[in-house]
Amino acid sequence: MYIEDTIAAIATPAGEGGIGIVRMSGDKSLDILKNIFKSISGKELDDYKPRTLIYGHIQEGEKVIDEVLVAYMKGPYSYTREDIVEINCHGGFLSVKKILELVLKKGARLAEPGEFTKRAFLNGRIDLSQAEAVIDVIRAKTDLSYNIAQGQLGGNLSNEIKSLRNRLTQMLAHIEVTLDFSEEEEIDSITYETLYDSAIKLRQDMKKLYDTSETGKIMRDGLKTAIIGKPNVGKSSLLNAILKESRAIVTDIPGTTRDVIEEFVNIKGIPLKIIDTAGIRETEDIVEKIGVERSKEFLQMADLIIFMLDASRELSKEDIQIMEDIKEKKAIVIINKTDLPQKIDEDIIRKYVQDKRIIKISIKERLGLSDLEDQIVDMVYKGDLVQNNDLMITNVRHKNALEKAISSLEDAIVAIKDKMFLDFISVDIKNAWDYLGEVTGDTVSEELIDVIFRDFCIGK
Amino acid sequence: MYIEDTIAAIATPAGEGGIGIVRMSGDKSLDILKNIFKSISGKELDDYKPRTLIYGHIQEGEKVIDEVLVAYMKGPYSYTREDIVEINCHGGFLSVKKILELVLKKGARLAEPGEFTKRAFLNGRIDLSQAEAVIDVIRAKTDLSYNIAQGQLGGNLSNEIKSLRNRLTQMLAHIEVTLDFSEEEEIDSITYETLYDSAIKLRQDMKKLYDTSETGKIMRDGLKTAIIGKPNVGKSSLLNAILKESRAIVTDIPGTTRDVIEEFVNIKGIPLKIIDTAGIRETEDIVEKIGVERSKEFLQMADLIIFMLDASRELSKEDIQIMEDIKEKKAIVIINKTDLPQKIDEDIIRKYVQDKRIIKISIKERLGLSDLEDQIVDMVYKGDLVQNNDLMITNVRHKNALEKAISSLEDAIVAIKDKMFLDFISVDIKNAWDYLGEVTGDTVSEELIDVIFRDFCIGK
Repeated sequence: MYIEDTIAAIATPAGEGGIGIVRMSGDKSLDILKNIFKSISGKELDDYKPRTLIYGHIQEGEKVIDEVLVAYMKGPYSYTREDIVEINCHGGFLSVKKILELVLKKGARLAEPGEFTKRAFLNGRIDLSQAEAVIDVIRAKTDLSYNIAQGQLGGNLSNEIKSLRNRLTQMLAHIEVTLDFSEEEEIDSITYETLYDSAIKLRQDMKKLYDTSETGKIMRDGLKTAIIGKPNVGKSSLLNAILKESRAIVTDIPGTTRDVIEEFVNIKGIPLKIIDTAGIRETEDIVEKIGVERSKEFLQMADLIIFMLDASRELSKEDIQIMEDIKEKKAIVIINKTDLPQKIDEDIIRKYVQDKRIIKISIKERLGLSDLEDQIVDMVYKGDLVQNNDLMITNVRHKNALEKAISSLEDAIVAIKDKMFLDFISVDIKNAWDYLGEVTGDTVSEELIDVIFRDFCIGK
Repeated sequence: MYIEDTIAAIATPAGEGGIGIVRMSGDKSLDILKNIFKSISGKELDDYKPRTLIYGHIQEGEKVIDEVLVAYMKGPYSYTREDIVEINCHGGFLSVKKILELVLKKGARLAEPGEFTKRAFLNGRIDLSQAEAVIDVIRAKTDLSYNIAQGQLGGNLSNEIKSLRNRLTQMLAHIEVTLDFSEEEEIDSITYETLYDSAIKLRQDMKKLYDTSETGKIMRDGLKTAIIGKPNVGKSSLLNAILKESRAIVTDIPGTTRDVIEEFVNIKGIPLKIIDTAGIRETEDIVEKIGVERSKEFLQMADLIIFMLDASRELSKEDIQIMEDIKEKKAIVIINKTDLPQKIDEDIIRKYVQDKRIIKISIKERLGLSDLEDQIVDMVYKGDLVQNNDLMITNVRHKNALEKAISSLEDAIVAIKDKMFLDFISVDIKNAWDYLGEVTGDTVSEELIDVIFRDFCIGK
């Protein structure tokens, strides 16, 4: 453990609740606690075994700050592998704040976001992909994305990466042995064939993993979906219907950008992140502004466009303009109000949207909504239903590392085919091995680690 | 312990954080935990001492729900005096939800708001005024209100009430003894004099306590303050200035009514609950609507009106209308923009607002703001500065009980003066004793208890 200072943070979410926790990690944790804690029993902290919940008061001198339960976990048997103290106090705004201030005053330093988990990684308790899974578990919006994150936290991605890297190591070893026991010019073709077979199989398995990344990203971050259409086609009604039918997880994203409000709904396990145009819609209707920069950006932001039309009205110029604008986007076309006499011309729509799915619904009559859900599921899974606990690449960082590893392996394959010097081939394979190591954090820069944990919440 | 079922709830605030806690209380807590917990060590829960934090997984069958630390506290050495289990899991939305659902499935019942604390009260660990202090500690908005709540949680109010009740008991005992040893007609005047002296002193002490209730209520609930005035007098600027200068505790009130947004600011320890007219102001200015029901209600709601005028403009009809409307209210008049040439006529203002304080400020030049703060402090404390840990009546329920107790004691005093039958006097004293008992919960109906805890947060 090369980290010297003791960090502290509020570990529970901000807000009103029964219990709040202030947590410390580092060498000074216990000393700081001794300084501010008085047990009800009158016993000293040292009289208790580590990991015992002890009832008492946090005090500054004689002044009681709060009634608490505290526990001390001796490293390495702790979350960070360092000495950890947890102080469970009342769950309000001031209890945790006052206790945090007190421990800072007594020598702890305010923890950076994710610093506890970062220490768990740096001290070798978990690898980087597991550390990243911690925040994915916390932020998961559907059961499926939660389960995938739990799988990653449990180490399924780490194990897969380890196994892939082992196979690369074996290839390197094979080259090593060959070089040791033979002159360069004597390398027989069996060596190249063996290497080739291994590389091809390995590439296949790496690609298989890589192919989960598109769905995986959606599972982790949500499918950004925009519902667009001219006024009165039923955008709000659709949103409400989806929210209701899917027993919405409605949460704000606690992010930095608050310009656009986003709501999560759960469509058969897929977190749909609906870019809420409700506010914008009322004041500056998207259709009125078509052509304007803002609405263009808006369309660009979305992974999926749900474009709504009104069956009872003829196609307008605005409708056609939108269809032009979404030509290159993933989109589903909804014709709403099928309960009314149909005036819209489907042939013209088909001409514009070409092979995009057109779904006819009546929100009023609750018809066709499940078709829409099925269509969304189809588009995300592309036929392969995701199973619980499936191993998936959910993180763009992992995807990029994997992509580079595959590319290096392909360089190696070309070199093998061309019967290049084994040393050359070895370099490509080593590169692939390094890139894979970025996923688990075996080969990763300090700067990158900082960036990764900056995205965490405080206290984790 | 007469409560049979086992309750469960999420004990930490909702939202994103490092740690979430699901808590159970009741006989079945440990069995339920055994059913769903698997330790990393492989040991059984029974192999650990109670109050030990044990590392492992919550599982449903073989399926891992989350990585957790659990602790089991055997009653009566627990918050509720019942068996308690705490499960510390990841702090996201789904971890706590899934674990809660699982424990409910395994036989726990969802706890009502405040039910853990209610059980702590019903099982005699704390009295009712301490139980009520729990939520006051959680909701406190300033250090001062926090300290007062902590004092009450620590039992200072309970002790004071107990001591007052003891003095009533002594009076009753005195009457009892007198009745036992003398014929009714023989009661000498010394008995009446003794009773009279005791009653007068007691009333004095009860009144002293009672007199803290006005300030106490503000400490607990905040001083509802509305900043009003016609457009462009500087209402927003004042709000911003107060927020900034006082290093605002800005929190939403997690209440049921969300019609009016309220913000808390801390003015020298006094929680000012500013009824935020910002939203209303923009669209439907309070002045434009003077006379309309809504703005009248608005004025009625406030404990304190800060009425703002613009020194650089002459008094308008609207200004005068407002001054009429706030005649009967506690109000401070602010004349802003004293940096500009003065056109407003203070004599006319004085005529309308009579003895209300008028403060001249320039928000732009940062002049006069501390006068405003001092004035607010003066109005709340009425000269007596509140000390940390001071005993105060902060709760309207306590205030009302105390009021009734004083009134009964006064009935007794009249009866003593009139040398009524001691039995009669005894009834009045007994009433006072009962009313005081309502504060600590010694004499209180089940319905009232339900009402009190309904106001709590879930999981406490």
